[in-house]
Formats: sequence, structure tokens, C-alpha cells
Amino acid sequence: MERVAVIGASMTQFGNRDMWVRGLLAEAGHDCLERAGVAPDAIDHLYVSNMASGEFEGQTGVPNALANDLGTISAYTARVDQTSASGGAGVYAAWQAVASGAADHALLVGGEKMTHRSTTEATDVIASLTHPVEYKNGVTLPSFAGLTARKYLEKYDAPRESLGKVAVKNHRNGVDNPHAQFRKEVDLDTVLESPIVADPLRLYDFCPITDGSAALLLCPESVAAEHTDDYAVISGIGGATDTHVVHERTDPTTMRGVVESGQEAYEMAGVGPEDVDVAELHDMFTILEFLQSEDLGFFQKGEGWKAIQNRVTARDGAVPINTSGGLKSKGHPLGASGVAQVYEVYQQVLGEAGPRQVSADIGLACNVGGFGNCVTTAILEAGRWATRHRR
Amino acid sequence: MERVAVIGASMTQFGNRDMWVRGLLAEAGHDCLERAGVAPDAIDHLYVSNMASGEFEGQTGVPNALANDLGTISAYTARVDQTSASGGAGVYAAWQAVASGAADHALLVGGEKMTHRSTTEATDVIASLTHPVEYKNGVTLPSFAGLTARKYLEKYDAPRESLGKVAVKNHRNGVDNPHAQFRKEVDLDTVLESPIVADPLRLYDFCPITDGSAALLLCPESVAAEHTDDYAVISGIGGATDTHVVHERTDPTTMRGVVESGQEAYEMAGVGPEDVDVAELHDMFTILEFLQSEDLGFFQKGEGWKAIQNRVTARDGAVPINTSGGLKSKGHPLGASGVAQVYEVYQQVLGEAGPRQVSADIGLACNVGGFGNCVTTAILEAGRWATRHRR
Repeated sequence: MERVAVIGASMTQFGNRDMWVRGLLAEAGHDCLERAGVAPDAIDHLYVSNMASGEFEGQTGVPNALANDLGTISAYTARVDQTSASGGAGVYAAWQAVASGAADHALLVGGEKMTHRSTTEATDVIASLTHPVEYKNGVTLPSFAGLTARKYLEKYDAPRESLGKVAVKNHRNGVDNPHAQFRKEVDLDTVLESPIVADPLRLYDFCPITDGSAALLLCPESVAAEHTDDYAVISGIGGATDTHVVHERTDPTTMRGVVESGQEAYEMAGVGPEDVDVAELHDMFTILEFLQSEDLGFFQKGEGWKAIQNRVTARDGAVPINTSGGLKSKGHPLGASGVAQVYEVYQQVLGEAGPRQVSADIGLACNVGGFGNCVTTAILEAGRWATRHRR
Repeated sequence: MERVAVIGASMTQFGNRDMWVRGLLAEAGHDCLERAGVAPDAIDHLYVSNMASGEFEGQTGVPNALANDLGTISAYTARVDQTSASGGAGVYAAWQAVASGAADHALLVGGEKMTHRSTTEATDVIASLTHPVEYKNGVTLPSFAGLTARKYLEKYDAPRESLGKVAVKNHRNGVDNPHAQFRKEVDLDTVLESPIVADPLRLYDFCPITDGSAALLLCPESVAAEHTDDYAVISGIGGATDTHVVHERTDPTTMRGVVESGQEAYEMAGVGPEDVDVAELHDMFTILEFLQSEDLGFFQKGEGWKAIQNRVTARDGAVPINTSGGLKSKGHPLGASGVAQVYEVYQQVLGEAGPRQVSADIGLACNVGGFGNCVTTAILEAGRWATRHRR
């Protein structure tokens, strides 16, 4: 089967944005088409990844509205939702559209508008993905993160400061990302002394509430070469789930969805964790970066925390993680996050990441919904003729 | 490319159901797997088509919860939404999952739980798909239907009673559908004298508010033959859109999305409208049955109304339409409707439609979102070895 290429990508400024999700999506979509040099009427399928525009702003039917704004009518359009991993599910949907032959040019635009709602309102919308009984008893996603962090630290004899260093590293990376919500460094003391949210996790262990959008343009590799030399290929992709009720899992410090979606992606790409040069992981909470870095096989189980202590996951380390700043400093507009992760990896493998650039032939993006409930993992590499290979 | 088969299908009782959407989906999903004789752990991808569980019942993350209920974890799952055409978009997503090779067995379950909300609340959720300015000015979907019906009747010199006869026919068909919400005949006078909703359309020109679910199990045709002789093939499928703002269209009596999605489906299947033996059309409003029957090429533009006058679309006519009872009498649980349409066509082409059975080699299902905003059309035929071919 022919491989699926990414011939254009973009993201908007993440942060507090004074426009509805429709406007954010249009901004990223227009920008992506313009960068790729592809006319709107070449688009066959338009996918929108978005969790909750209906709940956040009372507007549904957003894909159709966006089709109007982008000028892609009469191309097919649909919305894909997988809660906080909606972006990754959108990548998988657009990949399938191209791989199945249904579309020659599939545009994916992910986005969410959240900051006009109070933190309580926004987290209430997100919490609606949990089991009603868990929710009623106050076991929301931050609580799960706190419980899991405590378990992890105890089980693997990891110091609390190791979690804090994830926040410090990702904030440092975010300084060099012009689209990040927070472009400021934080020191370890600030993180460790910030207000407790779910013990042992504190305010700086959590990603913010964010508005933003990101876009990708996909096509078969043979078509990509007609547009540009500088395209990336999604050489592997996979998705998997874990139980809806978190307490039904044997070990909360392992995420089965991450393990299995990673295995699928590695198998399709014909590579292993040792081949991955750069990764965007879903650091909605600092503890999640450790779990994913282990469950994807970068480190042995229980040793993810040692990697941050030894600066292995720093930008100049052996396995740079979240060079974009991650959800932690870049922000987490639910439907956009998984798309923006792939955007960062796309830039890294093409050598277009500017001050954030690391040496990367193969990159990986892992998008996690709920508390590991549903996961999509994608592996990217530069296309055959990419400029970087000719340098 | 190998064709995609349907090896199992089911639907729940449509109507007022005393359970949340999760329960409805589980009922249809279990039933579909049992009929197909396929174990839950054979499922690679689980798709849920649903417009608004978040808005209707405050529950999101439903695909993950359903995966738990059906026992399909750790298979991938996602939700697909295309407003009132979510079901058709789900069929297209599951088709792409199989056609792309991502899944060997893709289970699609569509559903919606609506009747616990008042009619005003439910229509407000649906109306959120329209343009905010249209909505503020009272131009909701029923208003569009009324304006379009008036235009159609004037332009093509059609009698008002022709619209009423659509309701009469579909209610007649629904009597023989054990899963239909309304299993009762209505006479023409009752329709024509029912309360005005959007002149010239009256109460009986509209579909009801409904709870329900429907499911389909898809796999490659080569795999289908391992499970059963009695499978159907989705020989053609296509999707298309029209403007978000309805008044931007040149002629409201033609639906571009229907025309183009139909053309795509015909082309893939290698058939034309003259080959279609039975069709499920999206009769959310009676006028829509005329428009689709013309835009799909069954009749010349402006002559759909003559077909009902001449009983051509009746069950014993040349082109039976909505043998299931249609949305009109079967009900319209948004995310389920497009799936249930394909279920009816599946039964018809396999000769399993019981008292509703017509002579059908090739069937078509057309699912319409908004007022023609986004449309999916699928064409089905019996698999090579189906029992009906051997009778």
C-alpha cells in the first residue's frame, strides 16, 4: 500500500484567543493550504477534530461552517472526537481517508475554544468523559493524576523533584516556540512550591486551559512529490483503548492504550523505540510524560524519571521529548493538541524547527484521551526527497 | 481494491427508551456481534456515530464507555459527528477503516438519546448546527423546510397533497417494521389537517424526536466469506457538502450535497440511478424525500411529486422508497438514523426484510445533515454467495 504523506502543516497562536473555534480553525486551515500551495478546491475530505464546541460555545455543525470559510465545498466533511485525544483521532481519520483511496487531499483541522469559560466550567466539560460514578465522587482527571503520581513515586522510588523537572524542561522548550501559550521559563522551586492541586501534584504539574487550532494536509506519497520535495511521511500509525473506569485497571502506572497503539505504529513503520529521535508526548500532567516514555519503550518501566534526572529527554539529550514545549507550556486546546504534536514532529524531521531543532530522522507523537482511555500514536519521517537529505 | 462487506447489522426499538445512549448503543452493538457470530475481541476498530451526547445528557467519551460494555478493549475507538447525518458519516468512517487496511473488523454503532429533553430543548440542540444569525432570526431547519416546500410546490406546480402522501406512504411502511417508533397508519386528511408548523408544512410532515441505536459490522469481502454466505457489499459510497448558510444557495430545491455524494457512490459502484431497486432517503421533512429522489436521479427535477401521486415509490411500485417507514414513522435518533437506513437496505438486498421485502438487487441509502449541509450516500448489493442468489 502506498504511504501517506504530510505536505503542509500549521498552527495558530495558542493561548487566550478572542474568537470562536470556527475562526481559529479557519486561521489554521487557510495557513496550512497556503503553505502547501494547494487550492481549496483540491481538497476532497475535510476533517475537524474537536471535542466539545457544542458544550463550550453552543455551536455544532462546525465542519460545515469551516468548509464554507475555507472554500472547500462541496468536499466531504465530518467531525472526529476522542475527547482530549481528538487531534490524534483526526490524524488517523485523515490517514484512513487517503490510505483507503477515498481522498487524494485530506485536510485535517483540529481546534478548541475554551478560555471564555471559567476553569470550573471547562473542567466540568472535560470531566464529562469520566464514568458518572467516578465523577460524582470527585475522581476527576487531576485526581487520577495525583493518585497515579503518588503510586509511581512510591513504587519506583522516584523523587518528587523529578516530576517538577518535566515542567521545567517543557517550559524551557516552550520559550523557543512562537506559538506557545507560556513562553517563560520556570525554576524547580517555583514548580515545587506552587499550590497543591492533587497531592503530590501542584499547579505547575498541569497543563493550562487554552484556545487554539492546528492543521495538516495529507495525500498519497506519489501525489506529495508533485507538490513539494519537503514532505514528511506518516510511516506508522495505530490506536488503542483502555478501560473507561480507571480503577478496573491492574496497574495505573502502565497505560495499555499507549503500549498497544505504539506497537501498532512501530510495526507499520518497521522501526522500534530505539529508532525514535524525537517525541511529542501527552504531558497534560507531568506524570504522564514518564508513563508514556516507558510504555512506548524509550525507557524501562519505572526508569522514565531517571531520564529527566540525567537530562536524557532534554533538547540536547539522547531522546528529546516535547521540544515544542508540550501541552504543559504550549497549551492544550483539546481538539488541536494531537494535531499540533504531529506538526512539531513534522517540523523536526524536515529540519524546520528553528531554535528547537534536534537531530531527527524519525519522530513520534502520542496523543492520550481521558486517563489513557483512548490513544493514537503516529510515527513520521522525512520524505524521500526532502531537502534535509541533500544538505 | 478489495470491496468492503457488511456481515452483521441490527437496530434497537426506536421510540421513547428509558436508558441513556450508552445503554442503547450497547444493545445494538451486542445484538450485531451476536447475529454476525463474531467475538468482541475480533473487533479492531469501534466507531460511534452520535451528534450530541454531551449536550443531551452531559456524557462524553461514550465510545470508550461502549468499548467497555461490548468487551472490545483494547481496540481503537472514536466518535464521528456530522449532525443529523452522523450515521452516514459513521458508515463512511468504518468503510475507510476497512478499505485502508487499518481494521479487519470495524464495528459501527450509531445512536442518540433525546426524548428525556423537551421538544424545545431538543430542537435547540439540533438548531445549534445552523448559522448563529439564521438561528437568532428564527430560521431553523423546520422553517427552511417550509420555505423550500412552498417554493417547490409553486415552481413545479405540485399539489400540497403530494407532500401529505409521503407521510401516508411512510407510515404505512412503518406498520410492518417492528422497530419503528410509530406503527400506525395515517390517512391523508389527518396529515393535511394536522397543526401548521411551517406553512405549508404541518405536524405530520415532520419526523419525531426519538431514542434509538443501530449497528453494522464491516470487513473486507474476502474475510466476510469466512463468516457467512449472507453478507452485503458496500459497492459504492460518497460524501459531499453544501453551504452552511442556506440562503447562499442558488436554488433551495436542489441539494448539491445529495447530487455529488450520489455521483461518487454511483461511480464507485459502477451503476446508475436506473439500477437502484430500493432506497432509504432522509425524510426528516416530507419535502426532503422529493428533493433527494430527484437529486439522486430517480426522477427528473420537479417530478418527484408525480412519483408519489402515481404510487411509483410505494412498496409495490417501480422505485420503492423508505420501505422501513423512513425517519417519518421509524423515528430519527440523529446518530442512529444513517446506520438504520443502511440496515434496511442490507435486509432488502439480502431478502431478509420480511413483510417489507421488495425485489431488490441494488439498494441505496442517503443520509442528510442540516438542510443538505453534509450528505453521505451508500450503495449496497448482496454478496456473491448470498442465499438469495441460490433460491
